[in-house]
Parts: sequence; structure tokens; C-alpha cells
Amino acid sequence: MSNKLAEFQKIILPQLEEQLNSYLNGLNAAPTLKKAMLYSLESGGKRIRPMLLLAICHMFNRQIDEGVFAAAGSLELLHTYSLIHDDLPEMDNDDLRRGRPTNHKVFGQAEAVLAGDGLLTTAFEWLASCHLSAQLKVALLSRFATAAGPQGMVSGQIADIEGEKKELTLVQLKALHQLKTGALLQYACQAGGIISGATAAQMTELLNFGSCFGLAFQIYDDILDVVSTQAELGKAVHKDQVEHKNTYPGLLGLNGAYQELDNALLNARTALNELKHTGIETGILDDFLRYFSRKDN
Amino acid sequence: MSNKLAEFQKIILPQLEEQLNSYLNGLNAAPTLKKAMLYSLESGGKRIRPMLLLAICHMFNRQIDEGVFAAAGSLELLHTYSLIHDDLPEMDNDDLRRGRPTNHKVFGQAEAVLAGDGLLTTAFEWLASCHLSAQLKVALLSRFATAAGPQGMVSGQIADIEGEKKELTLVQLKALHQLKTGALLQYACQAGGIISGATAAQMTELLNFGSCFGLAFQIYDDILDVVSTQAELGKAVHKDQVEHKNTYPGLLGLNGAYQELDNALLNARTALNELKHTGIETGILDDFLRYFSRKDN
Repeated sequence: MSNKLAEFQKIILPQLEEQLNSYLNGLNAAPTLKKAMLYSLESGGKRIRPMLLLAICHMFNRQIDEGVFAAAGSLELLHTYSLIHDDLPEMDNDDLRRGRPTNHKVFGQAEAVLAGDGLLTTAFEWLASCHLSAQLKVALLSRFATAAGPQGMVSGQIADIEGEKKELTLVQLKALHQLKTGALLQYACQAGGIISGATAAQMTELLNFGSCFGLAFQIYDDILDVVSTQAELGKAVHKDQVEHKNTYPGLLGLNGAYQELDNALLNARTALNELKHTGIETGILDDFLRYFSRKDN
Repeated sequence: MSNKLAEFQKIILPQLEEQLNSYLNGLNAAPTLKKAMLYSLESGGKRIRPMLLLAICHMFNRQIDEGVFAAAGSLELLHTYSLIHDDLPEMDNDDLRRGRPTNHKVFGQAEAVLAGDGLLTTAFEWLASCHLSAQLKVALLSRFATAAGPQGMVSGQIADIEGEKKELTLVQLKALHQLKTGALLQYACQAGGIISGATAAQMTELLNFGSCFGLAFQIYDDILDVVSTQAELGKAVHKDQVEHKNTYPGLLGLNGAYQELDNALLNARTALNELKHTGIETGILDDFLRYFSRKDN
């Protein structure tokens, strides 16, 4: 990782963790529920969504204050809820997540449903009650809910379940992932732009970048499932193949999937170039694309 | 039911139904998901939470416009999500709700989890994107999330599950229900007051009324489980006893439970009297209390 993003992360990530912990710990909630929510939140994710938002604010020289942390943190709470529900026995039925037993394995299935419900609702509570202006909060909240709900992530989840029963075309697979993973990553970029007062032209490129980043992210995730070991990923691997999931390597072969990844990264870089033309120094977002380093079988 | 509430309901309820349907149908969502969400929404609930909000706005002569319907409708979406998740096999494991098979019985367990997630998220989307002022929306959204989340309903749900394993005292049972049912009913009253520009003194009495109404509601629900037939309730009865749930009749006997109900109703009427002293004609809320008519075994 280059200096820009690494340096920023070194300063900002501990602050984000502190904000996440302090908001959840400050809730006047049932102890078991709080414990279950914190368990999944603290299981060492890469915080990509909030980091995208924070990096964009930094890129636009927006001061990272309590309100910006709330916007970033609420994204991570929402993402964490989606993982807990996704892992449930009736959904993906995963026992392992980030190297640890999944939420329902530790706390029970009912508790995991409620921990997810709690994190989802808390995401909106935090954002609605933070110190950003009411105008800004409403702009964020409506887009956040749209990205996370039936017009975004939740429809992606159901399409994923339904897709297991049939073979999808590349177009259908892309559409599924645009909803399931892309919508929230794109919102992270959009939210960074909204908070920073980006112009309409800059907003367009942030959305383009977010869309390409989301696509690259999902292709890379599929590739990792093929080329990694369980120890490396901290979760079960080769699961996609066993469960006949629709994936990029499954549809295009591993080389074809890498080709699609390269295309997505190229388009992401094009968006950043356009952003540079508006006077923004985009180095920190360029650094984000290094996340997708080639890892051969 | 007296004229005031009945007359208002006759006009406003069809409009509320129309708004609920039109918002959900307008979502660009996966067809299965939308169908599952609409199924539970359309299963003929009494719409008590949105009606409370709407009646209070009416009482304060607040015009019932699109924004008020969004605030009311979002409450019903959120309540509906809580029923779907509550009925899940890992939670209460109910097959019947409002006389029809529960959501997971019709659509499957994963779909029911997602339909609930979708309704919960859509509740916030609708409220965040309606035509109320940004100030008003943020005031509502933060209180809504607090009432529905880990500081309210979700903690009530987990306390309910944990309570099944032990005997609760009356104080513990009240605390459980204040979270599980009371918080959202109280928010309905609070939201009506916020939207209508109620004074601080009026707000206090609306909150008192909401708290007593919520308590009466839960006691009455427990009583109905004892004294009703399945055909009357549209769901399984005597379930509380079979499952050794903590209930008011279980703790106090049927007569004792009726006594607690009468106390709650008396306190609710006291709050309405105080509200009358601020110049508000509270007839429509008095009518709400007739919901709790005595039904002997």
C-alpha cells in the first residue's frame, strides 16, 4: 500500500474504531444484545466502506469531525448487520467469518437475527442524531436507506438466493452484485462527496468510481474464493463451487475473471482521471485500487 | 367506538392503505421480495400505531398531508417487520398471524428474514425522503430509530426470549413490555406531537398517554390470549401458558390483570385531562381507550 492511504489509515483507523466502540457501548441496551452486536463489529473487518467515505472527505480537505465519523461508522454497522443475517442457517449457513465462529454459532440463531436488526436500526439512529446539519443528514439518510434496502442490497441478497437455483448470464450476475455489494460501496463514495460538498461533475465521477470499485470488489472476492486457503481468508473457501454459486470464475474461468477485474480497475482509474481534471488530488483513491493485487493459483 | 375516532378512521384509513400500497409498489425491488413485504403488510392489521399518530395530528388541527402519511406509514412498515421476524422459527415459531400463514410459511425462512430487513430499511427510507422539513425529519428519524432499536424494541425482544427461561417479577415484566411494545406506541404519540408542533407541556402528556396506552395494550393482549378463541384472534391462543411465557394473567391472575389494565387506563385518562387543560379537545384519544373493552372468560 502506498504512503497516502497507509498514512491516513494509520491515523484515522484507530479513531474510527474508538468511535464505533464508544457509540455501541454507550447504548442503553440489553447486555446480551450489546455483546452480540459488538462481537461481530469487533471481528476485525477491513472497514473498507467507512474508509472509502473518510478517504474521500480527506481528499476534499473536509475536516473529519464527529459527524463524519458517524456517517462512516453507520456504514460499518449496516455492513456488519448484513454479514450476520447473511451467515444465518436459513441464508448462507456459514460457521466461520473473519476466522471466528459466526454470530449465531456463538449467541444462537434468534439472538443473531436480533443483533442484525439492532445494528441496522442503530446505523440510522447514529446518523440521524449526529452533529451534521439536518439538510446533510436527510440527504445521506435517504440515499443510505435506498442503497441498503429493497432498491439495493436486500434485493441483491434475494437475487443471490434465487440465483443459486439457476445459471445466470454475465449481465445478470453483474446486476446481482451491483445490488448486493455495489450499492453500499457506491453510497460510501456518494456520501463522502455529499459531506464534502462535491460539485455535480465531481459527484458523477465519485459515483462512477464507486460503481467500478464495487464491481472489482466482487470479482476479486470470487477469485479469492478459488485461489486462497481457509487460513488466508478466515472463512471457508471453494464454497462457491461446492454450492454451485454463480461467480465470475465459474462463468468466465479464472483468466476471464482476472480480465473482467482489469476492465473494472481501468474504468475506476478513468473516473479518477476525470476527477483529477476538476482539481482534486486523487492519490488516496488510486491507493485503494491496490487492494486488488493479483494473486495467482 | 364513538363518533370522533370512527368518523376519522372512515376517511383516513383508506388513504393510509393507499399510501402504504403505493409506496411499496413504487419500489424498484426484486419481485419476490416485494411480494413477501406486501403479503405481511396487507394482512389486515388494525394500524393502531399510524392511527395514533394521525389522530394526534388531527387533534392538533395539523393538515394530514403526504409527509404526515409517510411518518404514519413508516411506523406500520417497521411494526410489520417486527412481526415477521418475531414469527420466525428461531424466535416465536408461529405458523399463523392475523388468520393467515406467517411470512416464512409462505415465502421461506430466508425470504422472511429479508422481507423484514427490507421493511425495516424502507421505513427509514420513506420517512427520510418525504416532504416534511429536514429539521422535522431528523427529529423524527432519531427518535424512531431509538424506539425501534437496541434502546427500545429490539432489547425488548431479546428480554422476551431470555424471560422465557425464568420467572419475572411484575416490575421486570413491565420493563420488558415498555421496550417491546411500549417504545414504538409511545413514539407514535411523540411523533404526532412533534409534527403538530405541540408545546413542551403537551409533549409531556402525549408521552405519558403513550406510555400508559402501551402498557394497557400489552396487558390486554395477554388477557385476550387467555379469554379468546383462535377464530376471534386469527392466531394461536393459550400459547403463552403452553410456552410458560411471562404474562400479566400468569403473574396476577385474570382479575389481577384486569385491575392492572384499569390502572393503566386511569393513568391514560389523567394524561388526557392534563392535555385538555392546555386547550386541546382530546375526544379522539379518549375513543382510542375504548379499544380495551372488557371481554370476560
